[in-house]
Amino acid sequence: GSKLKIFALNSNKPLAEKIAESVGVPLGKTSVDRFSDGEIRINIEESIRGDEIFIIQSTSAPVNDNLMELLIMIDALRRASAATINVVIPYYGYARQDRKARSREPITAKLVADMIEKAGADRAIMLDLHAAQIQGFFDIPVDHLMGAPLLADYFLTNGLDKDAVVVSPDHGGVTRARKLAEFLKSPIAIIDKRRPRANVAEIMNIIGSVDGKRCVLIDDMIDTAGTITLAAQALTDAGAIEVYACATHPVLSGPAIERIEKSPIKQLVVTDSIQLPEEKQIDKLVQVSVGPLIGDAIKRIHENKPVSPLFTNRFR
Amino acid sequence: GSKLKIFALNSNKPLAEKIAESVGVPLGKTSVDRFSDGEIRINIEESIRGDEIFIIQSTSAPVNDNLMELLIMIDALRRASAATINVVIPYYGYARQDRKARSREPITAKLVADMIEKAGADRAIMLDLHAAQIQGFFDIPVDHLMGAPLLADYFLTNGLDKDAVVVSPDHGGVTRARKLAEFLKSPIAIIDKRRPRANVAEIMNIIGSVDGKRCVLIDDMIDTAGTITLAAQALTDAGAIEVYACATHPVLSGPAIERIEKSPIKQLVVTDSIQLPEEKQIDKLVQVSVGPLIGDAIKRIHENKPVSPLFTNRFR
Ligand SMILES: Nc1ncnc2c1ncn2[C@@H]1O[C@H](COP(=O)(O)O)[C@@H](O)[C@H]1O
Ligand SMILES: Nc1ncnc2c1ncn2[C@@H]1O[C@H](COP(=O)(O)O)[C@@H](O)[C@H]1O
Repeated sequence: GSKLKIFALNSNKPLAEKIAESVGVPLGKTSVDRFSDGEIRINIEESIRGDEIFIIQSTSAPVNDNLMELLIMIDALRRASAATINVVIPYYGYARQDRKARSREPITAKLVADMIEKAGADRAIMLDLHAAQIQGFFDIPVDHLMGAPLLADYFLTNGLDKDAVVVSPDHGGVTRARKLAEFLKSPIAIIDKRRPRANVAEIMNIIGSVDGKRCVLIDDMIDTAGTITLAAQALTDAGAIEVYACATHPVLSGPAIERIEKSPIKQLVVTDSIQLPEEKQIDKLVQVSVGPLIGDAIKRIHENKPVSPLFTNRFR
Repeated sequence: GSKLKIFALNSNKPLAEKIAESVGVPLGKTSVDRFSDGEIRINIEESIRGDEIFIIQSTSAPVNDNLMELLIMIDALRRASAATINVVIPYYGYARQDRKARSREPITAKLVADMIEKAGADRAIMLDLHAAQIQGFFDIPVDHLMGAPLLADYFLTNGLDKDAVVVSPDHGGVTRARKLAEFLKSPIAIIDKRRPRANVAEIMNIIGSVDGKRCVLIDDMIDTAGTITLAAQALTDAGAIEVYACATHPVLSGPAIERIEKSPIKQLVVTDSIQLPEEKQIDKLVQVSVGPLIGDAIKRIHENKPVSPLFTNRFR
């Protein structure tokens, strides 16, 4: 078969290195920098003719720069005669703009999918998409990996599954909470937000029993951390003895870090799908790596094996 | 026919206002801002169903943000049932990445064209593309406007065509210099750069006579201003009494402003294809507006008239 090569762009080089290490190949040689006016300059510094390429790039902030790096890299690889171009997008930006919530809004998650395909990608590997429907925005094959087993692993390894109840911070996240609860063999609870009248604070009702329990909140991403920190407070008020939170994607924009610091959340467990600057790596934050998970997927794709079983193998 | 509407994005609102004024319509209502994590949020705030839309957006720095704004706006307009979507791109970013100069480089100017078409644009209106070949990167109609008549107008109006010689700063720009020289009815000269050996400074040879003349350097864009300021010095050394410079696009990145300030250039005449921050609006810089030129093109497109004659009508 053709040679497997992994290229890292600028969004998350530490993760790319872990992935390459797990696969057992060095990262491909490339330079990705800027011209004086800010335009992206990419040059691939080794022949890739006929090779099977994997590009590692999260479209996290700065989202437009990271997305354009990815598109330009795909263009360069295609013109340099790569055999196949596989894009690994651990965090898929613009995923929340996945439908028209109001009239005359864009569906940017679909636009981005179209751009990636038009640029020339042959396959996409993603992790915990905000909505699984985004797979359908692509016509190329999409492998959709799941972070829950890794998050579960952290709680299990540290004995935090004892007396635990997994809590979904909203109705939309119940399936995700159910999944984690299966791994932890714990019950679930759901936070039911209601706004009695306009311009009146939301009331947080808890469905399920959390009194005297260790609560584990789960979401797909933590952005401004408003929902999750309010939920943590509600759980504490309802008698939870400890509150943990976990999520695949640490977006952590705006007031997120301050809110988490001030909240009753004891630890926030996330993955390294997004590289965090030093100042966001607070003590409460634990990052587990998706490097081996993605590395395993890449090896399986290279060997033409199915990718899906690897989420569950470790737990069943 | 359908209603003509003009929408401005964030790159160059002053120009968009001038265009709208010249066409005689108010700018369409839209909000284009950011979510907390930096993702672009666009909402069109008036019905545009069945309308003929013109979007004004230069893909100048920050190029990736401005390009994504354009693509997302096209997506939103298409989904809101615009009849036609015309994109007006006074400055087309990534135009210099229009060919593979080395192996394994991208051709980003083509990628951008593909993205704009895939997003759903029906027609593009551009101004002095770095290479006219970029028109061929599009399958939709492209109207290619020319800034030279406006730049010429400035020199003519101010009597600066007297004793003038138009100078191309390199071999590639001779056609452009010829055009301006026709308008000014002046001779041309060419700067012939040669590097005798590697790692030795270039020698600037001047082809044509500039001694005792007013020189008018012309280029399509001024980016770091290295070439143009060295050329101005060479012309001064060769006996030019005054050196003017002009260009359609004031990119002016990195050391540009400092170099221009220190150079013998008396005035740099550019258009408003790119909006300049306060600190770049130095005394030496004159910006002539392409608002009426683009406004005229929009009116002609709306009336199904040919666009091209308007460059030359004023001068022939
Ligand atoms: N980057 C973003 N930050 C915050 N909200 C967003 C973002 N992108 C889209 N949205 C909005 O979030 C909503 C969808 O969120 P959700 O209900 O969690 O899927 C939509 O109303 C979007 O307009
Ligand atoms: N934004 C940019 N700034 C400076 N040089 C660039 C830029 N984009 C592309 N180039 C390079 O400029 C060269 C083309 O310039 P030109 O010969 O003027 O068409 C190519 O070698 C490109 O790699």
